[in-house]
Amino acid sequence: MTSPQPADTRTNGRSTQTATLAEIAREAGVSAPTVSKVLNGRADVAPGTRSRVEELLRTHGYRRRRAEASRSPLIDLVFHELESAWAMEVIRGVENVARDAGLSVVLSESAGRLTPGRTWADQVAARRPHGVILVLSGLDESGRALLTSRSIPFVVMDPAGDPGTDVPSIGATNWQGGLAATRHLIELGHTRIGAISGPSRMMCSRARVDGYRAALETAGLPVDPELIVSGDFHHDAGYQRGLALLRREDRPTAVFAGNDLQALGLYETARARGLRVPEDLSVVGFDDTSLAQMASPPLTTVRQPLREMGAAALRTALRLANGEKAESHHIELATELVVRASTAPPPEGG
Amino acid sequence: MTSPQPADTRTNGRSTQTATLAEIAREAGVSAPTVSKVLNGRADVAPGTRSRVEELLRTHGYRRRRAEASRSPLIDLVFHELESAWAMEVIRGVENVARDAGLSVVLSESAGRLTPGRTWADQVAARRPHGVILVLSGLDESGRALLTSRSIPFVVMDPAGDPGTDVPSIGATNWQGGLAATRHLIELGHTRIGAISGPSRMMCSRARVDGYRAALETAGLPVDPELIVSGDFHHDAGYQRGLALLRREDRPTAVFAGNDLQALGLYETARARGLRVPEDLSVVGFDDTSLAQMASPPLTTVRQPLREMGAAALRTALRLANGEKAESHHIELATELVVRASTAPPPEGG
Repeated sequence: MTSPQPADTRTNGRSTQTATLAEIAREAGVSAPTVSKVLNGRADVAPGTRSRVEELLRTHGYRRRRAEASRSPLIDLVFHELESAWAMEVIRGVENVARDAGLSVVLSESAGRLTPGRTWADQVAARRPHGVILVLSGLDESGRALLTSRSIPFVVMDPAGDPGTDVPSIGATNWQGGLAATRHLIELGHTRIGAISGPSRMMCSRARVDGYRAALETAGLPVDPELIVSGDFHHDAGYQRGLALLRREDRPTAVFAGNDLQALGLYETARARGLRVPEDLSVVGFDDTSLAQMASPPLTTVRQPLREMGAAALRTALRLANGEKAESHHIELATELVVRASTAPPPEGG
Repeated sequence: MTSPQPADTRTNGRSTQTATLAEIAREAGVSAPTVSKVLNGRADVAPGTRSRVEELLRTHGYRRRRAEASRSPLIDLVFHELESAWAMEVIRGVENVARDAGLSVVLSESAGRLTPGRTWADQVAARRPHGVILVLSGLDESGRALLTSRSIPFVVMDPAGDPGTDVPSIGATNWQGGLAATRHLIELGHTRIGAISGPSRMMCSRARVDGYRAALETAGLPVDPELIVSGDFHHDAGYQRGLALLRREDRPTAVFAGNDLQALGLYETARARGLRVPEDLSVVGFDDTSLAQMASPPLTTVRQPLREMGAAALRTALRLANGEKAESHHIELATELVVRASTAPPPEGG
């Protein structure tokens, strides 16, 4: 149990007052222990009372002091969707640093997470981890307020959109990666190079394709909008959208596939159309998950340091948990081209 | 805090007495609260004292009663090695059932897990999950005793060896899977069929190869020991051991690769030797992880219901946590052949 603490003074348009737990209790028409129960994520509070108290805690910008003492040795790691080798790399990065810090990792999938009455955020508030890492998964206003009021720091990894300057986030240099992938193809002699993007709502996807464009432009090659098709970062999109590219009479001799999954889908398109990789078609992926090494032929790709990113997100969360400031509200780690066997000079007359 | 409870009466050759927490304290020469601290996994106990108390708890078969009340809404999921699409499938199975039960999943990797002073088991004892699921990862005698004394149930998934009848375990019908894979190849007309096994210390690996042998024998085909090579379930073993098979003058026209990773390694061997899958070489995997669908050509494989196995392990753990008995100390879920594009009749004259 925490004794009442004055809340931060904030100018959020609704309240500029400091408020103690007792004052919040009075305003909500409940006892102080009830407010404390809500803060501690206890289940024995009526839903109506809970939401009234939450709302007041949020309006007053209430923030628990000295939460450190009562923290459990856990870190919450939340994925929008638990899928693919991609997620596994991030998990390993977080798990390894957590272990060294004597912490254990609680893993969850946010898709469809909400359960009636008690939300994911309530569960987190109840277990009081040292921090929360959200992977490609945003946090709404009320979830953010809930974690803030319990002094549980959170960090977003590889933000799909623009996380804003008030949430610390870790990313990778996607634009440079797209540039390096495409330059590699240009250096091999390709001039007709296609691209399969990811979803346009994801900033990382836009940045990769912009890097692709910049490589063509700086090499004095034309950017043909018909050679840029839009996928969703899944295997099937690589197959289907790859078909649109490879069916063309003036088909590209090389494709920057946006990520590894789409690159593997494109392998299958090539096979179905009797084209060999890399003799007839060069392919570059993005991510360098374990799939890239295991592909046949092994995939040339842009390495995104997923483990290091997971580790950096955790270190940032622990720093915030210690009351220190994050170095910067957004950090990007370097991507790197890894040349394997899926790229070669274009075929004669290609 | 739990009040002293008489321990179970057990005949383990060392003690047939019941012992209360106070008696254990007296025998260890410490106070009862110190024993309680050890039971609760608290850090403020000297290592020597901790191990003396643990030893006595174990000798007396001490078991905490009514642990349910103090359990946290967590499930521990432990992998020997966090790698591959395989682990991700299991995680998803466990996470989904856990979520429905209002529990969160703590994930850890046991390799190199031990930290001086506080072991993984201590951490588990401190956080008191509803149960522990060990994947391909045994538990030594003292770890087992530690969890038992805290009434934390544990279940082993897909045991590598023989887990014994005192530990509930969940597996799959590996023998039937090896049989189905090989019968499929025989039905296509293959008569020279190779096999790449996993490590011989893993029972699942032995069972798969025995199923392969049974299929050949029941079809009246000879079992050629030279066509059975031994791998380790990793991609590179598929490549290297596959090379040993494909270099032979009387090379097999089809290979049962033991698992999906080895099958993908074999794809690369075939490509390097100018052989096409399936025209020149048919390949069957085992597991049906996401890799199988994404391979080019898509891999014919034996589906192991990994998600369902994870879910079943969790349900068994929860049943034990509720004081019920497991249905059986070992359950195997059915495997199933999934035919895709990596298998075809043997080449003419093959």
